[in-house]
This record gives sequence, structure tokens and C-alpha cells, in this order.
Amino acid sequence: MTAVPRDPEALFDAAVGGSRPALARLLSLVERGGDGAREISRRAAPRSGNAYTVGLTGAPGAGKSTLTSAVVSHLRSQGEQVAVLAIDPSSPFTGGAILGDRVRMQEHATDDGVFIRSMATRGHLGGLSLATPEAVRLFDAVGHRLVLVETVGVGQVEVEVAGKADTTVVVVNPGWGDSVQANKAGLMEVADVFVINKVDRDGAEQTRQDLEQMLDLAGHVAEGGWRPPIVSTVATTGAGVADVWNAVNAHRRHAEASGELERRRAFRAADELREVVARRLDQRARELCGQERWNQLTADVVARRVDPWTAADEMIGTER
Amino acid sequence: MTAVPRDPEALFDAAVGGSRPALARLLSLVERGGDGAREISRRAAPRSGNAYTVGLTGAPGAGKSTLTSAVVSHLRSQGEQVAVLAIDPSSPFTGGAILGDRVRMQEHATDDGVFIRSMATRGHLGGLSLATPEAVRLFDAVGHRLVLVETVGVGQVEVEVAGKADTTVVVVNPGWGDSVQANKAGLMEVADVFVINKVDRDGAEQTRQDLEQMLDLAGHVAEGGWRPPIVSTVATTGAGVADVWNAVNAHRRHAEASGELERRRAFRAADELREVVARRLDQRARELCGQERWNQLTADVVARRVDPWTAADEMIGTER
Repeated sequence: MTAVPRDPEALFDAAVGGSRPALARLLSLVERGGDGAREISRRAAPRSGNAYTVGLTGAPGAGKSTLTSAVVSHLRSQGEQVAVLAIDPSSPFTGGAILGDRVRMQEHATDDGVFIRSMATRGHLGGLSLATPEAVRLFDAVGHRLVLVETVGVGQVEVEVAGKADTTVVVVNPGWGDSVQANKAGLMEVADVFVINKVDRDGAEQTRQDLEQMLDLAGHVAEGGWRPPIVSTVATTGAGVADVWNAVNAHRRHAEASGELERRRAFRAADELREVVARRLDQRARELCGQERWNQLTADVVARRVDPWTAADEMIGTER
Repeated sequence: MTAVPRDPEALFDAAVGGSRPALARLLSLVERGGDGAREISRRAAPRSGNAYTVGLTGAPGAGKSTLTSAVVSHLRSQGEQVAVLAIDPSSPFTGGAILGDRVRMQEHATDDGVFIRSMATRGHLGGLSLATPEAVRLFDAVGHRLVLVETVGVGQVEVEVAGKADTTVVVVNPGWGDSVQANKAGLMEVADVFVINKVDRDGAEQTRQDLEQMLDLAGHVAEGGWRPPIVSTVATTGAGVADVWNAVNAHRRHAEASGELERRRAFRAADELREVVARRLDQRARELCGQERWNQLTADVVARRVDPWTAADEMIGTER
């Protein structure tokens, strides 16, 4: 075994050269955030822009991990390489990311054509919304052409993250309409492809009708000319998985041809920039305002002498 | 029926006077964010500081809503008034908040001593993390002395929001250790009281041992002198619910006596202020940087000529 370099520069070169341990270490640096992550972004940005990203999300228990694993098997049978980023709010107590029920993916663990990473981002100040694009940019820069991003479809940030893919697949189950465990409105908004997984269970046809009706109500055809197709699967057996990937490719062709892909990527980049700006400004405001004044205004807010909006405006000087 | 006023000022006065429709309208303004929410915060801040907040969170299906409803019944039997804010990422397709499986709470719907509100915050630019403290501040200012905040314990923001209560109750189920559907590390971090709900199911004793072991590992006794107690319940029958509330009160007395409550509230206020500052600075940076330069730098990021961190620093001038 070759030794893995320690500094980001050498790690980056090694990862570009195909070193999996080097890529793994860089992803750990991204997870941690700070100067390391920033340096990686600086190197990765000019080399990126060639990866296609597919988000997979859905309610807890919908079978996202199983479907992701089945999609990976399908892609491998076609000879395609793929990277998987599993966003894991269930980060461990013990340090180091656990794969949890993603254990199913372990069938791919020894396959050099697959790179799977479970990412917890509790150390990253920007949280999921900044760590995810940084990790995707890194995969892209070191040569991955296809990146799957899997998130749980419950939290506000988690659904947004899944929606920031080139194509987003939303996984539901029969009976989904009765459940309030998922961020349904958020999921409806980000879906480019719907998958009804576990379609062998009762209520599949009703769920399909419900989804069609919601798509009718949302007027999805008019807007951009793409109506999310609804694909049926039993991910545990692999049934329907090829159809899922066909639907993803159909959306990809539509997005490329219509200019939607370009618009979406531009919007995403601007959105990320806006978040980074906010974070840098926060640091800068502290310098500008002076620690003493900052502390005084904070104390005023703590004591409820003023509300946060008024204090914020005083801190950054829009009131002066 | 008296007419409900339309402007925020009159609404606020009416809500302070006990008008429930006025309070409901103010909460809708908070949900929507913007100038309306800011004006409400400005009025509410000086009148607030008297409410005790209790967060309830846990994995989807853990029985949070049932437990919340049972706690409300217990409080009512003691003659206490209570407000419930149910944070609902499952916001509806149809406008207006739905209560979903919170339908159980409808037994309290006609009780004047209870105010229940399900809040979706998709319109609020600050999302949950800013809308929730604004809503709590409003409840506080109009005279509520006890506010329960219920969130699903999966997303990053949702767990943080629950953790920003004076006392946070984390609801788990037997077998919790095997599930990766919840943000476990996040939940461990915010818990002041653990509830094992559905304790009549298999594996309850194992779950208790697991929790105790995790608390041992985390060294929870040393830090602040409070070790989260573990309470067993069957929320559907009400068994153990009085114990939950006793544990909450024990934590409250500890937090008040040790100064922890004051520290926590100060930290929370500073944290909220930091978020508001970031949002205001974002607006201001656009003014300072000039739209043309801003657009140019955004285009550079979109085209991957620079990374977002470098562009951000140019926008806000730390590189000059």
C-alpha cells in the first residue's frame, strides 16, 4: 500500500490520480469545514462542471438506500462508474460515519467503479447546505461523472439539498398520502421523477392517482414542459429500477435540451455564493462593529431591551 | 363575534387582551416573515421574558404528538394554561396549516386554556430557525407562560430548534438503537429529559440500558450537574405522562438554581441575533458591492472561474 499524503495539495493531486484513500481524506476535510474545506473548493472549482448529479430523497423508511443500491447495481451492469454521497443526519455518537441501514450498499464496497460515502456534517459551520455542494464539487473535480446524493426527506435543509441536484428523484410508498412524516410540499416541489417503491403493497394504485392529481393541481406540465413521471419499483427485487434510470435520463435530456439544466446550475451556484457571503459577512460585522459595541447590543437583546432586527441594524450601521 | 382588526398594531393589542383570532392572525404574519414579522418582534421583545419553553422532539412515529397531547391533558388537569407550537415540515399543498396526525390534539380544540398552532414556515426567508423564536416571543408577549414546541427529530434545523427550548424532551421508542431514521447524535446533544414511549413493546429495557450507557459515555453528570432522566410512557393510555412533567419541572428547578437557564437564554438570544445580522448583511452587501460587480462575480462562480469563497471575499471587500 502506498502512503496517503497529508497536506491538501498533495491529497488533491493523488485523488485526481485516482487514489481512493486520498479522496476519502479530502471528504473528511470537507466534512469538517473551515480553511481546509475552503482550500479544496478553491482547487476543485476550475476542474469541475462535468459531473451530473442525481438527488434521491423520500420519507424515512421509504426504501431510499435500497433503491440507491439497486440503481448503483443497474449502472454497474451498464459499465458506468458512480459516486454516492449519503447525507446522514443520524451521525454517530462514536465519531466516524456509520452506514446504518446503508449496510445494503456494502455489496458495492469492494467494487472499484463505485465510491460510497456517508457524510455527517455536524462539524461544518455551514451545515449540509454548504458541505454538500463542496463534496459534490470535489467528486466532480477528481473525475466522477455521475454523483448520487441521498438524503432523508423530512427536514427543511435535507429536502433543499436533494432538490439541488440536476435531477431529483422522490421516493414514496403506497399509502404515502396518509402519512405526515415527510415534508410533502417540499418533496412535491423538488421532484423531477417520482418513484412509488414497495409497489407490491396495498394502495399503490391510489397513491399513483393521488400523485397524478397533485401534479394536475400544481400545473406541472405548463411550467417548463416537464411533468415528473411516476415509476413503480420493488427495490428489494430490483423490479422497475431500470425504468427509474430511464426516467432520470429522459429528464436529463429534457433539461439539457430546454436550457433548464443550465438555468438550474446557475441558480444553484448563485444560491451557494449567497450563503457563503452571509457567513463571511457575519465574521466581518464583528470586526466592523467592535467587540464592545457588539457585546452591548447582544446584552440588550438578551435582556429584551431591543428586538434582534433593531439590534442587527445598529450593528451593521444601516441605522446610522 | 367581534371583528378581528387588520393592522399589526391593533392585532397585537387585541391578542394581549386575550383575542385568539388576533393571535392566530399574528402567527400567520410571523409565518410569512418580512416586515410584518419584524414589526411583531419589535413589539413583542420588551413584553417577553416570562414564558417557559419546553421542546419535544424525536424520530418520526415515536409518538411525539400523542405525548404532547397527553402532556397538555395533564397540565389542564392541574389547571395550567398552555400554548403548543407544532413545527410542521409536512406543510400542505393547499395553503393553510393542516394538523395531520395531530388530529389527536383536537380534543383540546374547544378548550380556552389551550392554544394549538401548527406552523409551516416555507414563506419565511429565515426558515424555522428564525420563525420559531419569533412565534415563541409572540406567545410570551401576549401572556402565555408555558409554550410547548414540537418538532420532528430528523432534520438538522428541526433538532436545533427543539434544542433551543428551556427544557428539551427527546422521545424515543424501544428498539431505537437499531434505527437510523433519527438524528441520534443531535438528539443526544439536546436532551434534558428522555422519554421511552410505547414502553409496553419489546426491547424497552435494552433501550433504557443503551441510553444509560450513552449518557455514561458522554459524561453527562459532570457537565453542569444534570443527567437527563429517562422516563417510561405509554402516551396513548397516559401512563407515565405525569412523570414526564415531573422530570421537566425537576430540570427547570435545576436550570433556574444553577444559572443554566439564564446562560442558555443568553446564548439563544445571541444566536438568533447572529442569524438576523447575517440576513441583514446579505441585503447590505448587495447594496455595497454594486449590482454590476455582484452579477459579474456570480457569473464567475456559475462558470466555475472562481470558487464561492474567493468570490464572496471580493464581494464584501476583505480582499481589497
